Amino acid sequence: MSGSVNMSLHAVFETVETLLLKQGFSESHAGAIARTVTAAERDECLHHGLFRIPFYIIGVKSGLAVGDIEPTVTDLAPAVVRVDAHYGYSNLALEFGEEFLAERAKQSGIAALVINHCHSIVALWPEVERLAERGLVGFSFVSYLPYVVPAGGSKPLFGTNPIAFAWPRQNSEPYCFDMATSASARGEIQVRLRDGKSLPDGWAIGPDGKPTNDPAQALRGAQLPFGGFKGSALSTMVELLAGPLVGDFLSYQSGEYDTAKAGTGCGGQLVLALDPTKFTQHGELDRQLAHAEQLFTRILDQEGARLPSQRRYEARKRTVRDGVMVPRTLYDTLQVLLDGGTPTSRNDWEGDHNVDLPARA
Amino acid sequence: MSGSVNMSLHAVFETVETLLLKQGFSESHAGAIARTVTAAERDECLHHGLFRIPFYIIGVKSGLAVGDIEPTVTDLAPAVVRVDAHYGYSNLALEFGEEFLAERAKQSGIAALVINHCHSIVALWPEVERLAERGLVGFSFVSYLPYVVPAGGSKPLFGTNPIAFAWPRQNSEPYCFDMATSASARGEIQVRLRDGKSLPDGWAIGPDGKPTNDPAQALRGAQLPFGGFKGSALSTMVELLAGPLVGDFLSYQSGEYDTAKAGTGCGGQLVLALDPTKFTQHGELDRQLAHAEQLFTRILDQEGARLPSQRRYEARKRTVRDGVMVPRTLYDTLQVLLDGGTPTSRNDWEGDHNVDLPARA
Repeated sequence: MSGSVNMSLHAVFETVETLLLKQGFSESHAGAIARTVTAAERDECLHHGLFRIPFYIIGVKSGLAVGDIEPTVTDLAPAVVRVDAHYGYSNLALEFGEEFLAERAKQSGIAALVINHCHSIVALWPEVERLAERGLVGFSFVSYLPYVVPAGGSKPLFGTNPIAFAWPRQNSEPYCFDMATSASARGEIQVRLRDGKSLPDGWAIGPDGKPTNDPAQALRGAQLPFGGFKGSALSTMVELLAGPLVGDFLSYQSGEYDTAKAGTGCGGQLVLALDPTKFTQHGELDRQLAHAEQLFTRILDQEGARLPSQRRYEARKRTVRDGVMVPRTLYDTLQVLLDGGTPTSRNDWEGDHNVDLPARA
Repeated sequence: MSGSVNMSLHAVFETVETLLLKQGFSESHAGAIARTVTAAERDECLHHGLFRIPFYIIGVKSGLAVGDIEPTVTDLAPAVVRVDAHYGYSNLALEFGEEFLAERAKQSGIAALVINHCHSIVALWPEVERLAERGLVGFSFVSYLPYVVPAGGSKPLFGTNPIAFAWPRQNSEPYCFDMATSASARGEIQVRLRDGKSLPDGWAIGPDGKPTNDPAQALRGAQLPFGGFKGSALSTMVELLAGPLVGDFLSYQSGEYDTAKAGTGCGGQLVLALDPTKFTQHGELDRQLAHAEQLFTRILDQEGARLPSQRRYEARKRTVRDGVMVPRTLYDTLQVLLDGGTPTSRNDWEGDHNVDLPARA
């Protein structure tokens, strides 16, 4: 295990929180980011974990993102609550809105949380998982920075535009997915570039608009939506829900706004919560959840089939016990930042909010 | 144009309504089905058009579906309304619930319509399009009859589980999609069987669980979800929303319930409506819709890219003016049914609620 440092999840949290305070983030932002980064490390979602810390800091130093402003909450309707992030990161805005969203969903049966003016460089599964832990069904939609071409087209327009969904389970982690509507994560292309590997068909086009298996051409061209016209239609839906519906940027506008190319484009987000007990006449949550288990059992009974997020949940069991192994170079960078040092420029960090981490030591 | 009969859309509607009344359907059911079938003919969605009439009748004659029962409406929560279809077809249940759903969405900002105990052999775009015509954003989810295998697995479990979405537009038909989460419609496989053509890769597996390009093997095996594990996760989500969430059947249970193999399996449906004016601080619908047009323009500016449903909307312009061409064999069948005759058995109709129509004359 040379070349890497073992850290407990507690140490990860403490390090991130302390480091962000030192870097000028407010306590509430530092805490919210530390919770998300620790959850990502716990689940071995490495490119949303410690690796992402310099991005948060560079976003603020570039003058685009704000690290010490409190979100504000407004009710837009009995079942719609809005959090204005005031150009802070979404981590805190989502935590801020969650209690209101859950309360409205329990009152009305279904409710929506609108987030405006937020910088988001985080996965969506944390917020929908938290809703599921409250016994609610959750959806989350966000668009961001134009990397993906509409099916049939030739120029990047959509963000990787993820859709997340979670369903509560009684004796295990939620049924949860958090999927880009692009064929791959951007980081998966960059990792293949680094490793000198070619791309599978269907991932990307080059700057000439033609399909490519060359990761360098792909990064200069555009990613493709997953599943052809169907994935493209879903990506368009995400643009509408996280943009015009909530009065915030489309992905291409977020790209225009990111003048510093800090990779922390700005925009809106939509989260929905449904209270299952309000969707049947007698509100029998236990029965509803037991019913869903019949489906999960029939999926898992088929060899080769699986439920999404299982890899995350398996990592979770391991890291809660054993902690995580952090590459020495990243660990050293964190020490510099803890001393109040400045992260190197974005390009030194492989220049993309969706980039993947080098393999664990 | 020999071998086909020209009918105006008005004549289509009158024929269907009269025919269903003659076959024992109530006025409200006959009217609702006639509206949906006429809309499908208008949009040249042939397998939801006149072709489908015998299926409606066989469903009732099999003793599973009920053609003359009124749905009942209950409020489950301030933003959740439930329609019990009492084993009637969904066409009427959806019309019944729509006014309530729209009203609740305008009050609360977002609302849900639960449909229970309905037989559904209809597309989902009519209800979401109608919501968009009211200035609302609509979602619809339904599961049905186990034809589709979970990604990586080998046995059919999911329905073709469509997701429909519509967004209102000011000077054109809504942005709308209605997509199966399976790689293809079942009818597309049957048409290839009829025409002696092989299937594209990625559509189906045979009864041995291995990929097949043979449509006969595919129909005895299972369809594949679109987009691999991502489509499979979406299909699972639809099962949960239209089943356990609303206290109704999963697809495999619907299959077990369809003892008569009438192909009109029974279950639940979930429709969501969002009022865009409740999702921004100043509720400026015009501005929100104009903003969305910036996205649509940028999609359509790319050669090769398109918006979903455009083929339907183009057909609509044509058929409103010229009427539709109905194959002589189908036209003759309709005359028999108008005289109170009995449709031939389901198998004579190519045996599937998702079957496609022979090509137009």
